[in-house]
Amino acid sequence: MRGLGYQQYDAPILEEAELYIQKSGEELGNKQLYHFYDKGERHIALRPEMTPSLARMVAAKFGELKFPLKWFSIPNCFRYERPQKGRLREFWQLNVDVIGLPAGPIDLEFLYMITQLFAGFGAKPEQFQIKFNHRGVLDRWLQYQKLESYKSTIYAVLDDWYKTDEEVKTATLKEAGLSQSQITAVLKLNQDRTYQEIAYEFAELRLILVNLGTIFQDVQITFDPTIVRGLAYYTGLVFEAFDTNPNNSRALLGGGRYDDLLDLFGKQAPAIGLGWGDATMANFLDNWQLWPADLHSSAGVKVGLLPNSDQDLIKIYTEILPQLRANNQAFEIDYDYQRNLKKRYSSLKKRGCQEIIQF
Amino acid sequence: MRGLGYQQYDAPILEEAELYIQKSGEELGNKQLYHFYDKGERHIALRPEMTPSLARMVAAKFGELKFPLKWFSIPNCFRYERPQKGRLREFWQLNVDVIGLPAGPIDLEFLYMITQLFAGFGAKPEQFQIKFNHRGVLDRWLQYQKLESYKSTIYAVLDDWYKTDEEVKTATLKEAGLSQSQITAVLKLNQDRTYQEIAYEFAELRLILVNLGTIFQDVQITFDPTIVRGLAYYTGLVFEAFDTNPNNSRALLGGGRYDDLLDLFGKQAPAIGLGWGDATMANFLDNWQLWPADLHSSAGVKVGLLPNSDQDLIKIYTEILPQLRANNQAFEIDYDYQRNLKKRYSSLKKRGCQEIIQF
Repeated sequence: MRGLGYQQYDAPILEEAELYIQKSGEELGNKQLYHFYDKGERHIALRPEMTPSLARMVAAKFGELKFPLKWFSIPNCFRYERPQKGRLREFWQLNVDVIGLPAGPIDLEFLYMITQLFAGFGAKPEQFQIKFNHRGVLDRWLQYQKLESYKSTIYAVLDDWYKTDEEVKTATLKEAGLSQSQITAVLKLNQDRTYQEIAYEFAELRLILVNLGTIFQDVQITFDPTIVRGLAYYTGLVFEAFDTNPNNSRALLGGGRYDDLLDLFGKQAPAIGLGWGDATMANFLDNWQLWPADLHSSAGVKVGLLPNSDQDLIKIYTEILPQLRANNQAFEIDYDYQRNLKKRYSSLKKRGCQEIIQF
Repeated sequence: MRGLGYQQYDAPILEEAELYIQKSGEELGNKQLYHFYDKGERHIALRPEMTPSLARMVAAKFGELKFPLKWFSIPNCFRYERPQKGRLREFWQLNVDVIGLPAGPIDLEFLYMITQLFAGFGAKPEQFQIKFNHRGVLDRWLQYQKLESYKSTIYAVLDDWYKTDEEVKTATLKEAGLSQSQITAVLKLNQDRTYQEIAYEFAELRLILVNLGTIFQDVQITFDPTIVRGLAYYTGLVFEAFDTNPNNSRALLGGGRYDDLLDLFGKQAPAIGLGWGDATMANFLDNWQLWPADLHSSAGVKVGLLPNSDQDLIKIYTEILPQLRANNQAFEIDYDYQRNLKKRYSSLKKRGCQEIIQF
């Protein structure tokens, strides 16, 4: 992230529970919130997400900060729910936010940054896809179709778009009171020409749509009216990225523009951000064998050392280790002078020593 | 740590409170424990230290692990106490442990590793000092002096050795019932010849004492009978390291041998470990201006880009960024086409761009 011009920040794991109850919506802020009363009778929660802490901190130092902020963090977050594939009780999440730049070219830069992060893992264009949409377009289209009063039902149907078949969608929309022609309009949203026309009314979205092929080339990135990101606080561009391997169907990352981020704290600054969780990303790295090779091993060649006496040991510390350290080479010393040399040798080999020095 | 042959592990932030109430002693396991009952009525604590989690996990997988384990972790830990200089409610702590090697040359290697970690920060020998002692020596000496029954009082006096004057020490020891000659013996422990002689009875300690000058050269490392590390679980070598700047008097790190680490879980394996906290270390890095230069800045030269139109922007994304990314150079784009060019230029300069490309 530093190579993309971002600075790292951190925040406490514990916050007052109220921060999430007000801010994070029913699911995160209530059902899944890991909260309790501490020894001082304070109502405390383990953070279920990083954004409310970010908003609280930026609002508190609003006058002192140089905007725009381009910040990232890799916090662990907690959800009180049954663990399942791709969703764990404790997880780590890359958070990236730009605060203080209105909708515009930064929205395009954000999508570009995502492709660069995938490239950083060595991912190939056929292995992932990015889908984006725009809350403003969706809301104007609902208005145009006179469907504003059904907004929450339609958002819910779009949110589950690829998980439900047409029958279920139709039933849900019918139950909410939509007419047959309105239902048809929602079901055909993906091919709706008016929707595409409205999209071009938003300058930042037009910039992205017009230059998609030029800038992103072979990356699979598509404008998809069904991407809404739940009911939460987004105000403009929204996006998600997916593994193209169907065994890993949950979004790898999601985010968008949320210009009312700081409203709760009485401040105003436009913002765009994303969250990228570790659980689905770990599945992605498994699927395409993209784990960094040196993640669990030592730097460079690890040298094994087989002293047979304290005298050898002194030689190691005064002559050999200074050289190995100067080259930043890892080492491991077997201290078991009494044991069979062959066994000691093969034990060091098994522990990852590529070179072994004997005495 | 990887360069020193260690592997990284992680553990949960939450554990059952019982783990610490049993294991961590009065201060950590009771008064300072941040504990609560969760929604499932479980008695839970935020970890105040990493070692009990390590012991629990190693014991659980005891049969599958290849010993010796050489492991490290950098967890955040929590203490319910008033924040003060060098002690915060949430802090980060490097934990290093070797499990499965008995007292021997590994104890020397541990002290060597500490000097290497200081060297990694660019610290000079005059900026820090290491002090070590041995619980076995101390206990044998207490036996020799027939002072075993006063062990906890004497440990407490040694623990506060450099914080209290002779009068206070004398009063405490007198109150506990020591005779005048016994009090004198304790007060002169630092120069006690018998204590030095007992030290040579322990092979691993003898190895360290005999080779101190040869191996550690100009590092300030001294055998100091007053280092005890509280009443907690140590069984052999104990050590602490200090900033030589008197404004930062708390230990930077501490640790030692604790061969009964796994006893609580019904397993047996000798072990040696250390904890190195971030708060006093941050003071140390402040004192000697040793913060890594690139900690809060981007990698390499950061390039500022000043487009005046969407057309310039496309050029940036298709021609310039691919080159910058290939060189892993950080960039920042100013999107405010309308604003005065001079102001935009100086704003990018202020944001750390050493090179600026105009259109």
